[in-house]
Amino acid sequence: MTITGISHFSISSLLFSFFFLLSTFASSSSSYLYPVAPDKDGKTRSLYSEILRDEAVARLNELGKVSDADGYLERTFMSPASVRAGILIREWMEDAGLRTWVDSMGNLHGRVEGINASAQALLIGSHLDTVVDAGIFDGSLGIISAISALKVLKSNGKLGELKRPVEVIAFSDEEGVRFQSTFLGSAAVAGVLPVTALKISDKSGVTVQDALKGNSIDIAEESLLELKYDPASIWGYVELHIEQGPVLEWIGFPLGVVKGIAGQTRMKVTVRGSQGHAGTVPMSMRRDPMAAAAELIVLLESLCKHPREFLSDGGNYNEFTMESLSTSLVCTVGEISTWPSASNVIPSQVTFTVDLRAIDDVGREAALYELSNRMYQICDRRSVSCSIERKHDANAVICDPELSSQLKSAAYTALNGMIAEVQDEVPVLMSGAGHDAMALSYLTKVGMLFVRCRGGISHSPEEHVSDDDVWTAGLALLAFLETRV
Amino acid sequence: MTITGISHFSISSLLFSFFFLLSTFASSSSSYLYPVAPDKDGKTRSLYSEILRDEAVARLNELGKVSDADGYLERTFMSPASVRAGILIREWMEDAGLRTWVDSMGNLHGRVEGINASAQALLIGSHLDTVVDAGIFDGSLGIISAISALKVLKSNGKLGELKRPVEVIAFSDEEGVRFQSTFLGSAAVAGVLPVTALKISDKSGVTVQDALKGNSIDIAEESLLELKYDPASIWGYVELHIEQGPVLEWIGFPLGVVKGIAGQTRMKVTVRGSQGHAGTVPMSMRRDPMAAAAELIVLLESLCKHPREFLSDGGNYNEFTMESLSTSLVCTVGEISTWPSASNVIPSQVTFTVDLRAIDDVGREAALYELSNRMYQICDRRSVSCSIERKHDANAVICDPELSSQLKSAAYTALNGMIAEVQDEVPVLMSGAGHDAMALSYLTKVGMLFVRCRGGISHSPEEHVSDDDVWTAGLALLAFLETRV
Repeated sequence: MTITGISHFSISSLLFSFFFLLSTFASSSSSYLYPVAPDKDGKTRSLYSEILRDEAVARLNELGKVSDADGYLERTFMSPASVRAGILIREWMEDAGLRTWVDSMGNLHGRVEGINASAQALLIGSHLDTVVDAGIFDGSLGIISAISALKVLKSNGKLGELKRPVEVIAFSDEEGVRFQSTFLGSAAVAGVLPVTALKISDKSGVTVQDALKGNSIDIAEESLLELKYDPASIWGYVELHIEQGPVLEWIGFPLGVVKGIAGQTRMKVTVRGSQGHAGTVPMSMRRDPMAAAAELIVLLESLCKHPREFLSDGGNYNEFTMESLSTSLVCTVGEISTWPSASNVIPSQVTFTVDLRAIDDVGREAALYELSNRMYQICDRRSVSCSIERKHDANAVICDPELSSQLKSAAYTALNGMIAEVQDEVPVLMSGAGHDAMALSYLTKVGMLFVRCRGGISHSPEEHVSDDDVWTAGLALLAFLETRV
Repeated sequence: MTITGISHFSISSLLFSFFFLLSTFASSSSSYLYPVAPDKDGKTRSLYSEILRDEAVARLNELGKVSDADGYLERTFMSPASVRAGILIREWMEDAGLRTWVDSMGNLHGRVEGINASAQALLIGSHLDTVVDAGIFDGSLGIISAISALKVLKSNGKLGELKRPVEVIAFSDEEGVRFQSTFLGSAAVAGVLPVTALKISDKSGVTVQDALKGNSIDIAEESLLELKYDPASIWGYVELHIEQGPVLEWIGFPLGVVKGIAGQTRMKVTVRGSQGHAGTVPMSMRRDPMAAAAELIVLLESLCKHPREFLSDGGNYNEFTMESLSTSLVCTVGEISTWPSASNVIPSQVTFTVDLRAIDDVGREAALYELSNRMYQICDRRSVSCSIERKHDANAVICDPELSSQLKSAAYTALNGMIAEVQDEVPVLMSGAGHDAMALSYLTKVGMLFVRCRGGISHSPEEHVSDDDVWTAGLALLAFLETRV
């Protein structure tokens, strides 16, 4: 075991939030890397490295080359590359002993019945589509890890011994690049995709229905509704996904359990003041929307860093909400612009976006309420006019505690099997990004595992998961299947 | 006399700065508007209203229609409209008894010798060019008021009795719209225009030299150098100009004396941090350049509002500097942008402009030093990288105290003549905008009068000076000529 330290962040500034963030993680003083050589008893060699590491990594690389674009990775809903990717994944599913089919929303399914075909099924999935100029792990890692774990069971002759059916689903659309509408695939399976979605057009005027028809899939409103799984037939949904953030890397842990997927509010804030000449209006006579916007953004950051300090006065929020906010609230100003945007003109107007996410919806509303009140106070004091528009809201999804606990045990088993002396507990994280599990949560209980992401970088060709972390991910799913299914 | 109040600003928030700003203005409790009807003795009727108000306003309106553009006002260096405007102004100069000529930089001169042609001359000027979509007073008001005042002297038979020559100059370029180089006209007369300026091209590739040649003016390097006036032949330069700011209107005073023209520094601030997903990076792990930029802009505003609080620690600055900064420092962030500018991405980079002006150059440097130090401290604390580039610097110009005092007396005389009971002193202001007087200050002592500007709006068709304020402006120049020249 190698101990490594992360030097480019200030540890002191991080610790406060970290110990809240990780409800069960005991120490950040060490981090887990893998032995380069097998242990003396050849233990690591026996952990199915050929299937779970070597083949899985090779398949990720192969799938990562299946692109609609030259020179970078792009696969969108029902595009030629998505269809080719589906054919590849289907082969791998069948190689793992799964029965396969494509449904009428283009989702690819691979299923094994186990000893009781009528038992409630475990679904394991992720998406096969990508963003533009994507990395090769986002989505694909969850699909390939699941197939690899089942292939190990097949190679051990244990596939037929599963107590319940296991179905791997490669969802046809999660990123929403082509139709600007996320979760086309998983929402259909969960029964929450409105039939109107079939009529959404891409930039070329091709509808979702057209795109499916172009691939010999006839879908009408009725067949879309029939896609919904019967909740009584499903035991739960598990998704393994690259973290897309820096937390696991900073802790030095390859896997983490996802506590839930944050709820999100997107807002547009517009501040209007008095335009003027940069030289001729004394400071005390200004109603400067840029200075006001700066104060609002400083407030936003403070509130999201230290929600307890801002929300504790009212006494209306319980400890669960306060704790949730303290560990999960994140706020971002990604876009800002001034009008008329000249260096020697005091702007008349400044507009900026706010993206605010938290794992607890009550807490998110409380933070938004407090934030809005304080923003309007600042605007009043400065005699500028402010408008805060809510442009988008999505509620949080909480992962099933029991399923999460089982995934945590499986992750621990996987890592303990490889390293022998795992002293720390598997960390528990919030997901700030959306996943297919959000849609599946309308159908069944969901649980998620995150895999360490180099530099926290995702949605980029720089996205990377180490070969050994791919291996650990496969081992964790294997352990879950062996012990819980 | 009518008393009026300005209600749309908070008086309490303004008073602090105002009483510093106006070194001699005693009370802001009243404001001067004009009697609609003449006083009982017909006093106002006798104040040359036909020439100084009616004709001057008519000429401003006529000149305001001389444009290169349809539907809005635009006159640039040596453009057809500028030439036509020059012909009009030349007629008006000759109508006032002045001998006229156009020099080889396109400046229009009108001169009367008075009783001693070899005495040092008083120059009175402003510019005949405009910005794009301009108002009709910026520049033109100073030229027309001077011509009108001299026309009154002619009508009184006093033009020949002037103790020294008086020369009105309509400068060919101050705004710099066509060649992106301000003061082409006045800098040539002052002898500070580099000969390389002749080779500057406009967007069509036409040089300054070409533009003059196209109007039958042959200029070479030598003739440009010959344009410089002999400092020994000049007594001083006076310029009357629309304020282009809100101060006189807020005080309720038609005229103000300009203490000086602020020095200016333009900077570009770039903040670089860590790009990331708005949902997946905990607040404590962020190196967010947008939040940092907001804190820098809040600092900038605080420092420029309250420079004493920020500069008093060092003890290195004398009371003059501290007082100058407190009364004149203005800072503006007019442009800001993020990269990559998406609402759900923590930016990697934020860039914004800073325009900082003050009447005292030592103070401006002190403010910049303190500002930079504190900005870098904030960036260090936040682990973001900041660069502060100085893109442009111009030193302040201080108006001649004696000339300013004479102009103040003249303004008082003008107003007292019209209103009879002027209780307050004429206010003293800083000019935050540049004027031809900046160039002329290299040649001779300069003094300026500002005229009240409706709403502080300039560089816009909304720019406005009331007819009565035009009248008062002309009366002030007349009083100055009668008593000081």
